[in-house]
Amino acid sequence: MSRLFMFEKPLGMRDTLPELHEAKDKVRSSIEKEMKQWGFQFIETPALEYYETVGTASAILDQQLFKLLDQQGHTLVLRPDMTAPIARVAASKLFKDQVPLRLAYSANVYRAQQREGGRPAEFEQIGVECIGDESVSADGEMISLAISSLKKAGLEEFQLSVGHVGFVNELFVQILGTEERARELTKFLYEKNYVGYREHVKALPLSSIDSQRLLAFLELRGGPEVIGKASELIENGKGRAALDELKLLWEIIEDFGESSRIKFDLTIVSHMSYYTGILFEVYAGMVGFPIGNGGRYDKLLEKFGKSTGATGFAIRLDRLLESLGNLGEPEPVTCILFSPERRKEAYQLALHRREAGERVILQDISSVRNLDACSDTFANVVYLVGKEGVQ
Amino acid sequence: MSRLFMFEKPLGMRDTLPELHEAKDKVRSSIEKEMKQWGFQFIETPALEYYETVGTASAILDQQLFKLLDQQGHTLVLRPDMTAPIARVAASKLFKDQVPLRLAYSANVYRAQQREGGRPAEFEQIGVECIGDESVSADGEMISLAISSLKKAGLEEFQLSVGHVGFVNELFVQILGTEERARELTKFLYEKNYVGYREHVKALPLSSIDSQRLLAFLELRGGPEVIGKASELIENGKGRAALDELKLLWEIIEDFGESSRIKFDLTIVSHMSYYTGILFEVYAGMVGFPIGNGGRYDKLLEKFGKSTGATGFAIRLDRLLESLGNLGEPEPVTCILFSPERRKEAYQLALHRREAGERVILQDISSVRNLDACSDTFANVVYLVGKEGVQ
Repeated sequence: MSRLFMFEKPLGMRDTLPELHEAKDKVRSSIEKEMKQWGFQFIETPALEYYETVGTASAILDQQLFKLLDQQGHTLVLRPDMTAPIARVAASKLFKDQVPLRLAYSANVYRAQQREGGRPAEFEQIGVECIGDESVSADGEMISLAISSLKKAGLEEFQLSVGHVGFVNELFVQILGTEERARELTKFLYEKNYVGYREHVKALPLSSIDSQRLLAFLELRGGPEVIGKASELIENGKGRAALDELKLLWEIIEDFGESSRIKFDLTIVSHMSYYTGILFEVYAGMVGFPIGNGGRYDKLLEKFGKSTGATGFAIRLDRLLESLGNLGEPEPVTCILFSPERRKEAYQLALHRREAGERVILQDISSVRNLDACSDTFANVVYLVGKEGVQ
Repeated sequence: MSRLFMFEKPLGMRDTLPELHEAKDKVRSSIEKEMKQWGFQFIETPALEYYETVGTASAILDQQLFKLLDQQGHTLVLRPDMTAPIARVAASKLFKDQVPLRLAYSANVYRAQQREGGRPAEFEQIGVECIGDESVSADGEMISLAISSLKKAGLEEFQLSVGHVGFVNELFVQILGTEERARELTKFLYEKNYVGYREHVKALPLSSIDSQRLLAFLELRGGPEVIGKASELIENGKGRAALDELKLLWEIIEDFGESSRIKFDLTIVSHMSYYTGILFEVYAGMVGFPIGNGGRYDKLLEKFGKSTGATGFAIRLDRLLESLGNLGEPEPVTCILFSPERRKEAYQLALHRREAGERVILQDISSVRNLDACSDTFANVVYLVGKEGVQ
């Protein structure tokens, strides 16, 4: 192979080197522990799924899918998210329809990038799904668990923005008349292109009252007072029901003692087209993208033959680590340098110290080209060289 | 999508459901802990690599590779092993040539299956690589660490078979004259087809002495006495040097106190063509395939521009779990069923119990269709329903 190509990795693919890996492990296990403590059961699904099943259900743009053909000629995809695979497993094997099912995962997902721009094509999500529970309590549980998990991971400064995609759809369809026109306007929200949104609204053939309603909608961000303002914009039952859900959600998070962490932002929508109700995004410190997001998806299970509600969320481990900043000190390592005469002694010393919790390398001194480099690399160097008692 | 197709997974792809997942987690973390204790640093590499770099270096049959084209027209592969990616990272970023480098990983690898026959196309390996150490001490460390890791994972009955691919090559080339003829005969060993081996040897135009040497070779299995027998079959320096390495290895494992775990089997070869020296396989109880294997690969780093020795091993987590048998009891889970009036109380009780280490589900009672099923599902059910004090 050519020298230039030798070390390269595919677009958006990254190595995780020891220091970051250790920090990632710690953060992952503190979150996993919390999710287990809340009664969620971890499962794993394959990296490859059929395009026809999970690929199309995942609602990730086709051009972002890594596709391949298997030897039988079926199209496979590297899973672009975990919600659709979990829905497949739940519907086919686990969900019995009598008691809601709580599942969790930590897994890499794959989204092809068009150009080298810093976005990873493979990244890890830790998340949960609560399947078979249509109550707002379940949505509240998702938000409470997201908050609790992030706190356990050591994150202090973070906020959740909460919206309701059902409310947005109702309002837009009521004013614009069709789902298609509603979708067109929603696209600006997804891109967070509010200038584009305003221009689009102004160009629409609407009454000035309706136009004003759509512009006022953009201001629906803040505390619980937002719900009152929102109810002035919509009259029909479904829209009001969505707002009642948000009101109840607020009470739940107040009972949990964390309502200071949440803000309503009714302009939140998601590129995940399967969301149907309450949805939320988590923001922390200086990280520009959400470090986590979640919401209710009451239609996805239908694609796998079960009609039931579900809600969940996922945390992006890479972004969480970024927002945590300092990775902490690496664990100190002791290196025992030995010569063959004292090998047995070296093995015993290492065993003893490892049992006491120390990290200990056993190194044949004949393989070290530079002893100074050894002192630089390890916190502690012990020599067991030459005849016993003579150093 | 069609109902039939709806739940299917690609050939050889599997879901890991909660009970097995929990057992896998426990075993993985006890092994990871041991490897860290021995001073190995964990890293992660991408699931996708360029075919031209890692794909060809991995020595997995081409038809076993999952290949795809990226949007730039390059061929990518899902990593079929971890040794080649780690060699890439070590050579490009980490290895400084002065002190041997100790790296570790736990990762899924991917090998396409031709038919549904029980072999997984995705499976997890936990392994280590020691790079830059050409001493037998490093080979001894690999075997010691493999033994120690498996014991920490709770495995009691297991054996390691140790061979030397350098010895096999020397013997075969010496007798057969060319690398190609040696490879042809080696293939029978890889397939463990000893009948085929014998027939092949008898059909070769060899002196009866040479033919006898090749047949006697098959008997080189057992304790340290095997080394003496092997030295009767080979005279040249390289072959003898290989045997001296095995002798020293035996002494090292004796010093480690675990020589009863190892047996020599000089007929062991590997389908991983990059092995050059000592190599070993781990067998446990009733599992027919090795649950782990490892060895020295002194040429692989050259493919990434560094000329240095390396040795390592990997444990197959699925097979290890199979040989451990009983997965242990799942952790008990308490379910608190609450109605809205007592939500706050429920949250507080759950918090309290989770802090004490219990796994606690908070469940809105209105979402449970069958309370009996709830009692069947959870170890413990607590009702916080109706007005406080009234149940």
